[in-house]
Amino acid sequence: MYIPTLDDMLVAHKRIKPYVHRTPVLTSTFLNDLTGADLFFKCENFQKAAAFKVRGASNAVFGLSDEQAKNGVCTHSSGNHALSLSYAAGRRGIPCHVVMPHSAPQAKKDAVIGYGGNITECEPSTTSREAVFAEVEAATGADFVHPYNDPRVIAGQGTCSRELNEQVEGLDAVIAPIGGGGMISGTCLTLSNLAPNVKIYAAEPEQADDAYRSFKAGHIIADDAPVTVADGLKVPLKDLTWHFVSTHVTDILTASEQEIIDAMKLIWMRMKIVIEPSSAVPLATILKNRDVFAGKRVGVIITGGNVDLGALPWMNS
Amino acid sequence: MYIPTLDDMLVAHKRIKPYVHRTPVLTSTFLNDLTGADLFFKCENFQKAAAFKVRGASNAVFGLSDEQAKNGVCTHSSGNHALSLSYAAGRRGIPCHVVMPHSAPQAKKDAVIGYGGNITECEPSTTSREAVFAEVEAATGADFVHPYNDPRVIAGQGTCSRELNEQVEGLDAVIAPIGGGGMISGTCLTLSNLAPNVKIYAAEPEQADDAYRSFKAGHIIADDAPVTVADGLKVPLKDLTWHFVSTHVTDILTASEQEIIDAMKLIWMRMKIVIEPSSAVPLATILKNRDVFAGKRVGVIITGGNVDLGALPWMNS
Repeated sequence: MYIPTLDDMLVAHKRIKPYVHRTPVLTSTFLNDLTGADLFFKCENFQKAAAFKVRGASNAVFGLSDEQAKNGVCTHSSGNHALSLSYAAGRRGIPCHVVMPHSAPQAKKDAVIGYGGNITECEPSTTSREAVFAEVEAATGADFVHPYNDPRVIAGQGTCSRELNEQVEGLDAVIAPIGGGGMISGTCLTLSNLAPNVKIYAAEPEQADDAYRSFKAGHIIADDAPVTVADGLKVPLKDLTWHFVSTHVTDILTASEQEIIDAMKLIWMRMKIVIEPSSAVPLATILKNRDVFAGKRVGVIITGGNVDLGALPWMNS
Repeated sequence: MYIPTLDDMLVAHKRIKPYVHRTPVLTSTFLNDLTGADLFFKCENFQKAAAFKVRGASNAVFGLSDEQAKNGVCTHSSGNHALSLSYAAGRRGIPCHVVMPHSAPQAKKDAVIGYGGNITECEPSTTSREAVFAEVEAATGADFVHPYNDPRVIAGQGTCSRELNEQVEGLDAVIAPIGGGGMISGTCLTLSNLAPNVKIYAAEPEQADDAYRSFKAGHIIADDAPVTVADGLKVPLKDLTWHFVSTHVTDILTASEQEIIDAMKLIWMRMKIVIEPSSAVPLATILKNRDVFAGKRVGVIITGGNVDLGALPWMNS
């Protein structure tokens, strides 16, 4: 297992610069008053492909030699990594093959196709995804870019908190959603080196709390097919992300489905930005753990903005 | 009739600075490719009260002497002026009385109440609004701040295009929605003085096209109760706004209800920002008048972001 280093992150940041945005940091007086904290929202919903995952995907795609790149890239993903990898492959002009659960939001499938990616559908479980993917990988000979358990991807995701740390002075903590742990691992990689006093929190849906249970147990626990509105957070930790989570994360906090939906609606209403459910989990946990964050300067990573506008979660709640 | 001057706008900008945001200008590669123009979106949906109208309202409220201010302010409004005036009055600590159509979006009513305003409801027609308002004004003795036909309000709205003109170099045109004409009049006031080569376009719903017909006829034509998804644009021109529109506007362009809804959804999907239907009318008219704007640098004023998240227009289309 190769563990990416600070230098890998710095090389990644230089490599991906032409293909990604340095996203803005927004604030909200209303949400500061509500939480008692100073919140700084790092808006990766404004990123290319509307997802932070374009950072890691671009680092992987543009780090390949021409020989390695000739058969393209392939992956399995609950959504944003799929469309981010398709975007990056499209910019390089190489094929991209993705395995997605048939239950993924239509907006994400449409975006993959729009960027020129080829989709093979699977059942919404880790078991099915991995089986279908093995066939696709064998048939295409494409380079596998794992959605999170890949040092190239983690180094790329780490560029987000490097920017946040430059954009906001004196952060006390950073909180990001956790699914497979790619963003959190990149955050750990960067901040443990550049700002070791900043505490790192991960936020997870109660209904997909495998990372929380892993963290408390001291070893990886994986669920096969969790059900949550936060469709980006259904995948389990793997060895590389577990390394970062178990070494550098201060705590993992969880929120219920209704708390996530309420936080999402609050951000839409008060900040006037479109975010996907996964991105609302950190605010949901801040609202229910006021004592942890009150009086602190907290970076909150808004991970993406890909959502079906015709099927918003509060329509059914 | 007092016609506000450039100096009035400059005084307004200084006066309102503590109470309003200098809003950001966003761009979209996708929308530039789609329209063939360079579009610069001035995002007043990120403004205090999520509406440009807080500029004019704050200028009126903070320009009052203590003696004038003691009975508070009053107005009638289809929504955003009501909540903007409530916000400004709240900041000054004086009462605010507003007459709103009972059909106004619940989000706007809630915001007025949230800012401490007092609502009296009327029927959704100009006739009813003006009758109910006369009673409220007489009963309270409050200072009437008209939503647009008021030199203080127009001078305040003019601060928006002053910022836009500073934020974007070499604009060829600016386009904004037109209802009563307050934003367009402020834009005319500012740009005719500071950037007289910039063409000014107004965008209007076909189903509330009284300004378009007035412009073509050469005199004000008013409809009593137009029906459109762009709920901020149902009111008619008045003498002061007609002065600016008839003197400085290059053209008024219209769009159908479906075109407005499609443009609104496009902005939400591609720019990841929450805007209200009125704010989508300019993009809708740019998309159907490609030859007018292609190759040009065009400022597009996103007027507000107050929308019922539980009743989005594409849910019914």
